[in-house]
Amino acid sequence: MLKGDLARYQAVRARTEALCAPLSPEDMMVQSMPDASPAKWHLAHTTWFFETFLLAPHLPGYRPFDPRFAYLFNSYYNAVGERILRSKRGTISRPGAEQVFDYRRAVDRAMAELLQGASPDTTRTLAPLVELGLNHEQQHQELILTDIKHAFGTSPVQPAYQEAPEGPTPSASRPLGWVRYGGGVVEVGHDGRGFAFDNESPRHRVYLEPYELANRLVTNGEYLAFIEDRGYERPELWLSEGFEAVRSQGWGAPEYWHFRDGTWRAYTLSGLTEINQAEPVCHVSYYEADAYARWAGARLPAEAEWEAAAAGFPIVGNLQEAGRFHPAPAPEADSRLSQLFGDVWEWTGSAYLAYPNFRPAAGAIGEYNGKFMCGQMVLRGGSCATPATHIRASYRNFFPPGARWQFSGIRLARGARP
Amino acid sequence: MLKGDLARYQAVRARTEALCAPLSPEDMMVQSMPDASPAKWHLAHTTWFFETFLLAPHLPGYRPFDPRFAYLFNSYYNAVGERILRSKRGTISRPGAEQVFDYRRAVDRAMAELLQGASPDTTRTLAPLVELGLNHEQQHQELILTDIKHAFGTSPVQPAYQEAPEGPTPSASRPLGWVRYGGGVVEVGHDGRGFAFDNESPRHRVYLEPYELANRLVTNGEYLAFIEDRGYERPELWLSEGFEAVRSQGWGAPEYWHFRDGTWRAYTLSGLTEINQAEPVCHVSYYEADAYARWAGARLPAEAEWEAAAAGFPIVGNLQEAGRFHPAPAPEADSRLSQLFGDVWEWTGSAYLAYPNFRPAAGAIGEYNGKFMCGQMVLRGGSCATPATHIRASYRNFFPPGARWQFSGIRLARGARP
Amino acid sequence: MLKGDLARYQAVRARTEALCAPLSPEDMMVQSMPDASPAKWHLAHTTWFFETFLLAPHLPGYRPFDPRFAYLFNSYYNAVGERILRSKRGTISRPGAEQVFDYRRAVDRAMAELLQGASPDTTRTLAPLVELGLNHEQQHQELILTDIKHAFGTSPVQPAYQEAPEGPTPSASRPLGWVRYGGGVVEVGHDGRGFAFDNESPRHRVYLEPYELANRLVTNGEYLAFIEDRGYERPELWLSEGFEAVRSQGWGAPEYWHFRDGTWRAYTLSGLTEINQAEPVCHVSYYEADAYARWAGARLPAEAEWEAAAAGFPIVGNLQEAGRFHPAPAPEADSRLSQLFGDVWEWTGSAYLAYPNFRPAAGAIGEYNGKFMCGQMVLRGGSCATPATHIRASYRNFFPPGARWQFSGIRLARGARP
Amino acid sequence: MLKGDLARYQAVRARTEALCAPLSPEDMMVQSMPDASPAKWHLAHTTWFFETFLLAPHLPGYRPFDPRFAYLFNSYYNAVGERILRSKRGTISRPGAEQVFDYRRAVDRAMAELLQGASPDTTRTLAPLVELGLNHEQQHQELILTDIKHAFGTSPVQPAYQEAPEGPTPSASRPLGWVRYGGGVVEVGHDGRGFAFDNESPRHRVYLEPYELANRLVTNGEYLAFIEDRGYERPELWLSEGFEAVRSQGWGAPEYWHFRDGTWRAYTLSGLTEINQAEPVCHVSYYEADAYARWAGARLPAEAEWEAAAAGFPIVGNLQEAGRFHPAPAPEADSRLSQLFGDVWEWTGSAYLAYPNFRPAAGAIGEYNGKFMCGQMVLRGGSCATPATHIRASYRNFFPPGARWQFSGIRLARGARP
Repeated sequence: MLKGDLARYQAVRARTEALCAPLSPEDMMVQSMPDASPAKWHLAHTTWFFETFLLAPHLPGYRPFDPRFAYLFNSYYNAVGERILRSKRGTISRPGAEQVFDYRRAVDRAMAELLQGASPDTTRTLAPLVELGLNHEQQHQELILTDIKHAFGTSPVQPAYQEAPEGPTPSASRPLGWVRYGGGVVEVGHDGRGFAFDNESPRHRVYLEPYELANRLVTNGEYLAFIEDRGYERPELWLSEGFEAVRSQGWGAPEYWHFRDGTWRAYTLSGLTEINQAEPVCHVSYYEADAYARWAGARLPAEAEWEAAAAGFPIVGNLQEAGRFHPAPAPEADSRLSQLFGDVWEWTGSAYLAYPNFRPAAGAIGEYNGKFMCGQMVLRGGSCATPATHIRASYRNFFPPGARWQFSGIRLARGARP
Repeated sequence: MLKGDLARYQAVRARTEALCAPLSPEDMMVQSMPDASPAKWHLAHTTWFFETFLLAPHLPGYRPFDPRFAYLFNSYYNAVGERILRSKRGTISRPGAEQVFDYRRAVDRAMAELLQGASPDTTRTLAPLVELGLNHEQQHQELILTDIKHAFGTSPVQPAYQEAPEGPTPSASRPLGWVRYGGGVVEVGHDGRGFAFDNESPRHRVYLEPYELANRLVTNGEYLAFIEDRGYERPELWLSEGFEAVRSQGWGAPEYWHFRDGTWRAYTLSGLTEINQAEPVCHVSYYEADAYARWAGARLPAEAEWEAAAAGFPIVGNLQEAGRFHPAPAPEADSRLSQLFGDVWEWTGSAYLAYPNFRPAAGAIGEYNGKFMCGQMVLRGGSCATPATHIRASYRNFFPPGARWQFSGIRLARGARP
Repeated sequence: MLKGDLARYQAVRARTEALCAPLSPEDMMVQSMPDASPAKWHLAHTTWFFETFLLAPHLPGYRPFDPRFAYLFNSYYNAVGERILRSKRGTISRPGAEQVFDYRRAVDRAMAELLQGASPDTTRTLAPLVELGLNHEQQHQELILTDIKHAFGTSPVQPAYQEAPEGPTPSASRPLGWVRYGGGVVEVGHDGRGFAFDNESPRHRVYLEPYELANRLVTNGEYLAFIEDRGYERPELWLSEGFEAVRSQGWGAPEYWHFRDGTWRAYTLSGLTEINQAEPVCHVSYYEADAYARWAGARLPAEAEWEAAAAGFPIVGNLQEAGRFHPAPAPEADSRLSQLFGDVWEWTGSAYLAYPNFRPAAGAIGEYNGKFMCGQMVLRGGSCATPATHIRASYRNFFPPGARWQFSGIRLARGARP
Repeated sequence: MLKGDLARYQAVRARTEALCAPLSPEDMMVQSMPDASPAKWHLAHTTWFFETFLLAPHLPGYRPFDPRFAYLFNSYYNAVGERILRSKRGTISRPGAEQVFDYRRAVDRAMAELLQGASPDTTRTLAPLVELGLNHEQQHQELILTDIKHAFGTSPVQPAYQEAPEGPTPSASRPLGWVRYGGGVVEVGHDGRGFAFDNESPRHRVYLEPYELANRLVTNGEYLAFIEDRGYERPELWLSEGFEAVRSQGWGAPEYWHFRDGTWRAYTLSGLTEINQAEPVCHVSYYEADAYARWAGARLPAEAEWEAAAAGFPIVGNLQEAGRFHPAPAPEADSRLSQLFGDVWEWTGSAYLAYPNFRPAAGAIGEYNGKFMCGQMVLRGGSCATPATHIRASYRNFFPPGARWQFSGIRLARGARP
């Protein structure tokens, strides 16, 4: 195996641990809702992946670090009923964080041995699995951030995860403009260069009517206008299910927003802070994105519209590497799309379904994506918590329409004006 | 207004009542689950539609039959919280069935007056509303049948709604064949001729990869093979949500199937009867249709694939008018698609979403379809409970993926073999 | 068997049907909550009792009217899982009311045959079972009234069950006085004269501290003062569970009370009517009775305190035979207890538990009372829906502390002042 | 204040921390069900009691350690809605365990200052509050043990809290004998010597029929006979609610029992171990205790029967100080009652209700006991987790009838044989 591959392995693994540096062992244990997992679980589960799919079958003589971990840190079906209940992950005090870090080190040593000793043939076999494991780990890096944000943000003491980023942040908003696309038959899906998940394939043609995309994300200021226009109280703006969620959950603003003493504040990973009107609105559900778009006389983009427009753009933006972990205002105006990658995942109006002639990978790894193709909506573009090496134009993220704890926001679309 | 319109009005209205003829006032009151409604509610709600959208605004001097009915029989948002809870519809003993029939007669008389007296101008205004009201009523005709089937079929005494149809039913199954379609850019959606719901528009282009459709529906015999192959126990065949439903609901066969004394029987509207292996499988959820298709090495059709294939076909089949109210085996083999219309609604692999540039109708009527565009799957083709005048190739029915009490079944699809 | 016994049988049975005379077959089908049952079910279940425990074992050649009724109308354990789910009783449209009345007539004829033909020996065997069956039926008479009150009172149209009673009702309240009892060792429980349920035995001694009982029931006017003093908002007045119920159920007044346009009204079996301040408060839970008593500086009586005080009194009062079906103001003052029997069941502060050395009856009939001796509180004295021949000083009624749909009210008690 | 009082304060406080010594900070955070609390919460809540009721009102110039702790560690009503949700206690990672121990040390220092500097007058005021605070803390000592037992015992890895006690444990069971009591008027309740909770007063008379108590607790071996006699499958042995619990919870043995490879094992605080037939059965609910007693032809004691019998006995037994934290077999036979104190809390057949003329303490402290007097059953005698200085014959513990995670077991009673 090439030296670069091991270096990349080590860099991704080290990055995961760096994200946990501000956390105490107790912080790493919190599960504040069933959809979120403790940081410790993420640390161990990603390690279990390498142990199970790389070390156990491919490193001669490898013995599991602890046989019980297959049970504790497996999120897959396999033998149904033998996993620990998802909602109970926060009750695992043993192994403690220290042992989980030991586990990581042991697996990392064995992975180094495996990768360094591999013959060219073996390398060809292992490389895609290692790549998948690293991409899997990057997904969990993002979840470490969103899950600890939920844990801290819903805690009565709302501790900060890190210092606020330095330097001034513009609070004036770039004017919203529209970029026009002619549509027709376009190709979408992964083009085969570099890694992609199975759900991005096969590349295929779709027909698009002419359409327009907003040149930036919807801002907090714009979203506040929707709130002040009683947006959350008007059923005609909402999907039926969405308005049901508004009422049963008592929603009146994005997740983490609080109105006190005449001011809107929001919990961020740097603590509670006043709303910046120029920043993209974040932590909204699909239902809210959809209702906002209807209120604004627009709609959400189809995922193919988004991908066709994004295809040529470089992967730059406010991504995980920026260390900000919070969306930023759009840069100064130009006529092109901005904020495509990073900042917030953009809800599309597309349900998460299989591409034509989709085939999941064989074996347990095939359970990764395909079996969730029901009841979820596609999001595109990555967020301020997504690594730059993890995102691309064809990347399909997906969450249920009521999910709000991800860094999720809104880009408007509309049919092209004649 | 043309005499034919009134005749059509009267025919549809009479048909609804004819469907209730086998029912006692007590039968018409049963609500056996929150998703179903009592027949009496259907009888009154459809009447309320004409009263509210036709008579109140357009018949001078019209006074509501009973002002409380607006509250009792309204299923729309308008003033949120003022409708009777959906799950409580079965507790309305007053008005009794007799009064509801009085209500129907009073509204029918007033409608005759309105339609007969209308000027050409008014006729132009009213005709689309009448048409919508009649289509609305036809939808509820189908629900009267599916809801009473649920009421009777889950009752301990399982009474028959009607006699079994006469004559022999073939029990041998036509062999499954595949029909190939070249794909490319096709047009789907309503073409503007005759009535359609707003969700069938606008007509637009989609790109399809070459594909194949099964020439008939999946049969009970084929589905039994899936059951016997332990299909309900193998998580790898299921969507994650689907397998969750299997476990939490305890599913092991389609709705209404019972295994006793070594034999599979099913409740039909003619009572409990042995399974006929040649009949189309019915009362399966989307989850089951999807799992079956995966087990069979195929998939479900996209709604555009189905519509493009069905476009040229006449509306014939085992529909409501046949009075059978139960799916029938496929006719003798030919090389074309059979069972397209009637028998069972065919689950597609398409989520129920807006067509490009979709606009809902204005006002309360606009709440009809658009606000349900989330979390549901599209079904095509109508069933043995659908009136022939109500179905067409562009018709989009939709239900949540777990729904089983509709006459819903499976047609397989696959990518075209090269 | 003596002629009088058959006459009594026929009178009780006729009375049950008379209570249903104002109801349509559809009314008799309503189940407005799981704790209530349809009138039709009460009619059939009481009949099933005679069929099962009298006719089947004792009338030679008797064949069940319909073998499925044992399943439909049994509320007993016997073979677990074979009863119809309690909450589904409202979905039984077949048998219809007419058939259920046929069932009653058939069983009544067979009972006449059985009772008239019985030898003296058999009579000795049957008499206690007949007596139990009739007392059982009287309990269900009361439930017919409370359950239809719930059905009608929670319906949007709130129909009246009967005309309002004629004549003026006093609206001024007799002053509250206290009656003192010396306590010491007293005997409670059934003394063996006449019928009693097994839970009233054995008669036994208890020691009572000196105590006082209020000479009348708490009135609506007094209870309004508690409401207006923010009684429902002050946790210190409530049992922990009780305050939880207040919050989760949104209680702010007794069941069936509505505050509209500045006036308190309540649904009664004669329709919606303004609150009469002199009438006893009714349809309160144990939690509310307990909180009210605490607010009033008093407590609820222990069941033995109540029984020792009531022991000498004749069974007179506003009972079912009065046909009022609504509590009435206390009569003019004298120094004795009033409203002991009838009006409302009086919550005691005693949990429903076995008397010392209690033994349930043998067989299925033994399941009648003993197995509910957990989680319920004792009520005493009968209500305006209780037959006079059914109540006595030793009678122990019991309901969970959150129940409000019975005619349940409050009599205050306190330790005797020195 | 006397030097001895401070010494006792320090001993109790130190004991609490000693119980946590085997736990990591992560262990101290686990909440494995809503009824249990994390050890850290117990450590802080007991400290909050002294801070709130002693230091804040009585130590001049005292400033709260952290004002947010009043919110985090308060279990009282006071301002409703301002406490952290009980079920969310396991999500508090900050303050961490270290800070909570800092909090304890700061409060302990201030308490020493307060107690040492108090004038005789102040001492008279403070002494009952300190005593209450220490008894409160002792209750939480027991909960620390039962709650960590639940956390570890339901964890997939089932870690041991401590080493198994040394030395042999007899596995043969002492024969069951009965001790007879003549009954009559007896006095129960606290006699005024030493500390007692408000719910043990006032002392009062009750009348008891002659009765008998088993001379030892029911053993595992005896309970196994009940299981093997299909005790969990026979509805006639159970209260209605109890059998409902059996079915909905899937109970088939006491909590923590597992049947694997032909052997019954149970989780103990020393890890998973084979059942010792001579040990008292433990971790049964009231429902199970009641069903077992019925099966055995006996019943549970009334709380007054138990207290009258226990009144003369010294407080010795297998209590917390033994450090065993697990019930032990009964000692060799003599004719007296054994195992009265310690081993397991003994379910009585008495509902937890107020004694005649009970008055709760004034203020927030009055919320301690009285408001739970509904829906719970009384247990007597203390367990292997109860401090010897905390238990007495008049002590009334109470839990809902379905609770199983306390050390709760069974002593049989019956009416005296003539």
